[in-house]
Amino acid sequence: MEQDGTHKKNKTVLKNGRIVTMNPAGDVVQADLFIHSGKIAKIGKISETDADVIDCSGLLILPGFVQMHVHLCQTLFRGRADDLELLDWLQKRVWPYEAALDAEAMRASARLGIAELIKGGTTCILDMGSVRHYDVVFDELAQSGLRAFGGKCMMDHPETVPDTLRENCDESLAESEWLGQTWDGYDHQRLRYAVTPRFAISCTDELLIDSSKLARDHGYLLHTHSSENRDEMSLIARRAGCGNVEFLHRLGLTGPDVILAHCIWLNSAEKRLMEETHTGEAHCPSSNLKLASGIAPVYDYLQHGVRVGLGADGAPCNNNLDMFVEMRLAALLQKARFGASALKAKDVLRMATHGGAEALNLGDHIGSLEVGKKADIIGILDETVSTVPMNDPYSQLVYASSSRDVMFNMVDGRLLMRNRDLLSVDEQQTIALAKSEIKRVLDRMQA
Amino acid sequence: MEQDGTHKKNKTVLKNGRIVTMNPAGDVVQADLFIHSGKIAKIGKISETDADVIDCSGLLILPGFVQMHVHLCQTLFRGRADDLELLDWLQKRVWPYEAALDAEAMRASARLGIAELIKGGTTCILDMGSVRHYDVVFDELAQSGLRAFGGKCMMDHPETVPDTLRENCDESLAESEWLGQTWDGYDHQRLRYAVTPRFAISCTDELLIDSSKLARDHGYLLHTHSSENRDEMSLIARRAGCGNVEFLHRLGLTGPDVILAHCIWLNSAEKRLMEETHTGEAHCPSSNLKLASGIAPVYDYLQHGVRVGLGADGAPCNNNLDMFVEMRLAALLQKARFGASALKAKDVLRMATHGGAEALNLGDHIGSLEVGKKADIIGILDETVSTVPMNDPYSQLVYASSSRDVMFNMVDGRLLMRNRDLLSVDEQQTIALAKSEIKRVLDRMQA
Repeated sequence: MEQDGTHKKNKTVLKNGRIVTMNPAGDVVQADLFIHSGKIAKIGKISETDADVIDCSGLLILPGFVQMHVHLCQTLFRGRADDLELLDWLQKRVWPYEAALDAEAMRASARLGIAELIKGGTTCILDMGSVRHYDVVFDELAQSGLRAFGGKCMMDHPETVPDTLRENCDESLAESEWLGQTWDGYDHQRLRYAVTPRFAISCTDELLIDSSKLARDHGYLLHTHSSENRDEMSLIARRAGCGNVEFLHRLGLTGPDVILAHCIWLNSAEKRLMEETHTGEAHCPSSNLKLASGIAPVYDYLQHGVRVGLGADGAPCNNNLDMFVEMRLAALLQKARFGASALKAKDVLRMATHGGAEALNLGDHIGSLEVGKKADIIGILDETVSTVPMNDPYSQLVYASSSRDVMFNMVDGRLLMRNRDLLSVDEQQTIALAKSEIKRVLDRMQA
Repeated sequence: MEQDGTHKKNKTVLKNGRIVTMNPAGDVVQADLFIHSGKIAKIGKISETDADVIDCSGLLILPGFVQMHVHLCQTLFRGRADDLELLDWLQKRVWPYEAALDAEAMRASARLGIAELIKGGTTCILDMGSVRHYDVVFDELAQSGLRAFGGKCMMDHPETVPDTLRENCDESLAESEWLGQTWDGYDHQRLRYAVTPRFAISCTDELLIDSSKLARDHGYLLHTHSSENRDEMSLIARRAGCGNVEFLHRLGLTGPDVILAHCIWLNSAEKRLMEETHTGEAHCPSSNLKLASGIAPVYDYLQHGVRVGLGADGAPCNNNLDMFVEMRLAALLQKARFGASALKAKDVLRMATHGGAEALNLGDHIGSLEVGKKADIIGILDETVSTVPMNDPYSQLVYASSSRDVMFNMVDGRLLMRNRDLLSVDEQQTIALAKSEIKRVLDRMQA
């Protein structure tokens, strides 16, 4: 596919920000940052004149947030599935909603989610779609400038998936393969395909096995849900006689190219499996509380070297896509579970940036501000009445800052938001489209 | 004391907002709201011409938030006491900080907290001070226009309170009485005194008993901490041979004029005591997680008719004073503890408004938007990319809105913020003062 690389010819100087690098040394420096051809070319005193200069005094400059688990297809259904546990939430609300999505509703949902993510400082996502219309999601991602891994959801189990969403195994694989061939690598690898069977309960063994083969044949990420809900665990135990991660492992769905969302209910053998196979975990603390699923022991995982990142999950189980909310909650919950000194602010911010990047095997390219890395960068108000006086920037960012304090968002050196104005998405049109499309979806759900 | 009532002569029309009344019927209406002499005079179609008109199209109009437990004296110490449990947090960080506060630092701390509260939509607080300089806090509250109950902290226990903060019982009572005589009732009852022994551990039996007498003699609220931390519970058990609430009850510190902050570790007899004595509870979910204290069973309390409100506690244990954060977290935590249908959004919003007002015995005057009530009102952006499409306003406000979406804040019909500009506090000066005063405090702490 053709790639729009014009913005990468531009040079940009981020002038006089307080740069929270998230590099291995943990440097925080007051400096300029020079971006050339979409990459970080220099950090220090920059006197370049032939560049777009962004005044960053009063801003904290950070690597953009990496959200390890979102569902752009669900954004339109925000606030319409409160007060339910996972399986009811899926069967009574979210699956009927997804079944009622046409291409235009999918476009509205993806665009709204992308707009929210950019405004809140996220620069990279791992997205799981619905079974249909993922082409539309990629089209929106392409236009938006956001970095993304994504794939169509796959579901073929005859006993658990409603007719309206159930696929034939071969056709699901074929559509996944076509989407990967069409979109993987778009815009200098900004968009990547991910093979995304929904969760073990909705998939036959055959689909799970073949999903992992498809991913390995093409070098795609594999992404699914696992061990989220206690009823889900009972169903898996009945079907496979083991835990959910153990079951996925037997079928080939563990490894350094696999991201499992949630991982709340793992036995000790499964925790070791996560560690030994270098499987990544996407921790979604808001979603896990709201669906009454539980509290994943991520402090324990991190102590054992498991690769953990954060994600907001979908709007109907959160009800927003806000990394500041997830960072704060992740820290607070681990303290309640493991003691007040567990999961310090710096460790949380690392999960939200470089930790997520490493779990996506992009740690050499994004997740920290270092020369040679891609210019995926955000700027956040340093001094507000909710944040001053600052002691350390990690504590401020995790506990006191807000998504509404993000002033600019840049991916590959291209500004997606400046002074809180979205540049690649029309904000008012996005809001209007969301409001009109949810009405059509609800009409179809009632029909 | 002289009272500035000039703003109450003014008439204001809130034009064409979506009014979430929080009245007993739960009405949500698209209408105008007419304010006269500081009170709500009419809700409906208003054609008054002799009034300040605020265009509220695109806004949700709500009763202002009631925060049942804050410490304005601690705001300057934001971010300087992370990763500690309660008793270490007090002894190693917060008490040394409070001991180093002079009148100017106290003024800076109070002003910063007030500014944050107004910007986030809070209109009424119950504040606990430090042992000294509460006169300065009242002076800041008087100028700010915020509604408040507050009092100087009282601590006299020879074994637990450091010399730098320990008071003589009689002197503590005398200063409390003087503050009450000076400030209680200021500006048509906008400021009220509250008698606030810190917590049982820091007070002799004599001080606790005499505190309750002082409060009853003058009709002041009584406010203290209780049953927050497990080590605190052990100390009380050793001293009194019973639970913390039971101990306070024996000394006279339960009743409809008492607000206990936290109440995490109550036995079933103590839960019944809360209910039977109509004692109020101030639930502070962020603080309770961050200090690894636990999760208070407020869903259970509400089922049994206990009067529960919400509060952010102090900046060093939160690290902000944001009712949106507390509402969302309160809902999510109760779902994790009691199931996904526990504590619905509307119930949380009630706790944050009318529930808090009732616990403060102000339910007839504030907490809902009804004709005759005081005009303590906030306006919140209705449509943002983080909140659309709306299903119901309660879900949107609790799960998706942000303190940064609050556009105006009004107390007694006086605008304290309009279009996010603070009107009674100089925002930039407040930030500058906070930054300079924390340096002086830290210097004194090191000396």
